[in-house]
Amino acid sequence: MPKNQFRDDFPILNNVKMNDEPLAYLDNAATSQKPQLVIDRISRYYGYENANIHRATHALALKATDDYEQVRDQVRHFINAKSRDEIIFTRSTTESLNWVAQRWGEAKLKPGDEIVLSILEHHSNLVPWQQVAKKTGARLRFLDFNQEGVIDLNAAKKTINAKTKIVSITQVSNVLGSIQPVKELAIMAHEVNAIMIVDAAQSVPHFKIDVQNLDCDFLAFSAHKMLGPTGVGVLYGKSELLEKIDPEFFGGEMIEEVSKNEASFKSGALRFEAGTQNIAGVIAFGAALTYLQKVGFDKIAAQDRSLMEAAISALQNRPQVKIYGSADPANHTGIISFNVGEIHPHDVSTVFDLDGVAIRAGHHCAEPLMNRLGVSATCRASFYFYNNLDDVERFLIAIKDTEDFFNRHPSKESSNG
Amino acid sequence: MPKNQFRDDFPILNNVKMNDEPLAYLDNAATSQKPQLVIDRISRYYGYENANIHRATHALALKATDDYEQVRDQVRHFINAKSRDEIIFTRSTTESLNWVAQRWGEAKLKPGDEIVLSILEHHSNLVPWQQVAKKTGARLRFLDFNQEGVIDLNAAKKTINAKTKIVSITQVSNVLGSIQPVKELAIMAHEVNAIMIVDAAQSVPHFKIDVQNLDCDFLAFSAHKMLGPTGVGVLYGKSELLEKIDPEFFGGEMIEEVSKNEASFKSGALRFEAGTQNIAGVIAFGAALTYLQKVGFDKIAAQDRSLMEAAISALQNRPQVKIYGSADPANHTGIISFNVGEIHPHDVSTVFDLDGVAIRAGHHCAEPLMNRLGVSATCRASFYFYNNLDDVERFLIAIKDTEDFFNRHPSKESSNG
Repeated sequence: MPKNQFRDDFPILNNVKMNDEPLAYLDNAATSQKPQLVIDRISRYYGYENANIHRATHALALKATDDYEQVRDQVRHFINAKSRDEIIFTRSTTESLNWVAQRWGEAKLKPGDEIVLSILEHHSNLVPWQQVAKKTGARLRFLDFNQEGVIDLNAAKKTINAKTKIVSITQVSNVLGSIQPVKELAIMAHEVNAIMIVDAAQSVPHFKIDVQNLDCDFLAFSAHKMLGPTGVGVLYGKSELLEKIDPEFFGGEMIEEVSKNEASFKSGALRFEAGTQNIAGVIAFGAALTYLQKVGFDKIAAQDRSLMEAAISALQNRPQVKIYGSADPANHTGIISFNVGEIHPHDVSTVFDLDGVAIRAGHHCAEPLMNRLGVSATCRASFYFYNNLDDVERFLIAIKDTEDFFNRHPSKESSNG
Repeated sequence: MPKNQFRDDFPILNNVKMNDEPLAYLDNAATSQKPQLVIDRISRYYGYENANIHRATHALALKATDDYEQVRDQVRHFINAKSRDEIIFTRSTTESLNWVAQRWGEAKLKPGDEIVLSILEHHSNLVPWQQVAKKTGARLRFLDFNQEGVIDLNAAKKTINAKTKIVSITQVSNVLGSIQPVKELAIMAHEVNAIMIVDAAQSVPHFKIDVQNLDCDFLAFSAHKMLGPTGVGVLYGKSELLEKIDPEFFGGEMIEEVSKNEASFKSGALRFEAGTQNIAGVIAFGAALTYLQKVGFDKIAAQDRSLMEAAISALQNRPQVKIYGSADPANHTGIISFNVGEIHPHDVSTVFDLDGVAIRAGHHCAEPLMNRLGVSATCRASFYFYNNLDDVERFLIAIKDTEDFFNRHPSKESSNG
């Protein structure tokens, strides 16, 4: 078995036991682990460099400001945005998506307008639009997907029409792992003068994103799913759209000038970043991006493919296991959702937990998709490039242990819901 | 000179030079430094415990969820809230205050209603209310302060009247350091059925807050000003008010149930925390609170007093130096705002910077206060309990160096604005 050259960089993968078993971490779609150098970057910041940014003129504060703003440039290049002013730091993908829904959606939509989503969306790209629809009288429409778990573009052509003002779609399903044709949907959206929003939370960690090539209008993702700290999200927005949006939060250094009753605001991304930001988080996210680029997306894709092939081909030999979505490992981007016979996913994950294998069970914040699949919940194992074939082996043993346990204790199956 | 027993716990205070001088960090009102154990708590979380919370059922995620939620309990006890559901984690004080302005203010205010602020407010507790006033037709009214830098309660009695719906006041001025009578203002507010909001960003780090004793309705503060990480704020709100507020952001684990067109939300603080939170930040904030409580607010107050007395009595012997606010060191809560003759504050801070003394110069996000003081800017030195009399000495040397430099180069004074 070839050694995974990156694994040693992640302390949690080597030092931690879960229920007395070495940890096999397969919950990467919820959050990724962090390499030591990202952890060290945070320690270095707080131990040697900590100061508030955009405020003071002392050398410590100027360096922290430079370091923070350099990460904005780094993110800009990472997704090939035209300008650094198109990169806004938020708290999370969820905040980024809510922000667009509230700031753009509420301001621009009228009764009868249509918002096109897919049935695959995470709640974070669904519920904000439900709220906007309620407030504005706009209507939600949903794109369905095919057997591969991919949005059907022929059906999309009929759904996206002159009434469509917003198309907001996940680039990778957080349940099925399937890659969605967001570039093609952006073309359709622009043909009817709608804007295209991409939820990239599950895609940016796995493959190279070029926002100019995708030609999306907004794109949202999170640092913590791609080796960075929690509490840092990114919202990319085209300059010409961001310029039309008023700030939402007010205070601190986003302000140009204030009298008792009036205030004017700075231009660029800064006017959307009021108050003290997650400075350490953003700076450490820069270290995460550098590390990811050193690993390289070719290697990440190759590892995704190799792990998916090994896991899916083994599962296909286990008749009790049902995999949701595509039969092709290439269309799983590190994510496998499955059920084991009639055993409730929470019971499955309990056996996994005892085996030291961290997976997730539930609706994965995607209840409409669960309804579409005809289940209340699934198990989800999600891999990243630092996982190895040992982890796949541990995953398969846990599947076998689950089957064995419930074959011995068939009454437990009644907890299926 | 007595040794400061806490100083060794803060690596930046011992290891860092600024412009080849040992760092004297006097910019604590902008952000505090972090003790090693807070830095270590972050490292331990990411190195051994990292998992997303409120989601998965594996042991790693359950422990992270417990640790995160225990900090909510810790904050609850720290400010003596009635219930853990009254503690919402936000990104910053600025976000907390904007949140109340938008969620409560916009929903409840009508034309003719009055919002009472003070002329001392940080922009974060001013500009959001300007926006709310514009949207709702409510009117802003301002409380002035006396020679001690303290809001005049007799004048307040006339300003707070039947039209008043909201009183929102800083507990400690971020420029003058003066402590405001928020408890008395809360009584006045409640007498006219208005709500009382307290900006506690500069107070919670320095003295014990009891929200039940203050009887405020909302109270906002930030972790990073009290030894904790950046990107974590707190909003306290009375349960009976929070229950009347709809969530703002939607997605992730704040949701109870979702269909394609409808969603229902969880109760308690969680429904306001959509998406992945700053988990590491909150957990490390818990370590900061534990450390602060071990230090004890008695010691913090004594150190504040001793440093303020030493600095202010020395400055009073320098005729060129003008101190803003009270002449009484007890009413400075670690903060001294000053100017040196006609020398522009930015020029003063440049000399300080070369001397390795970090202070801040500018309007301190409080332009209406600057106008009231009749200046465009001040210098601000802000101390915390880990500062010592050496730092005061360094501060006084920098003052002398400033005077000496500009006495030798008088033409520089023309940059005064």
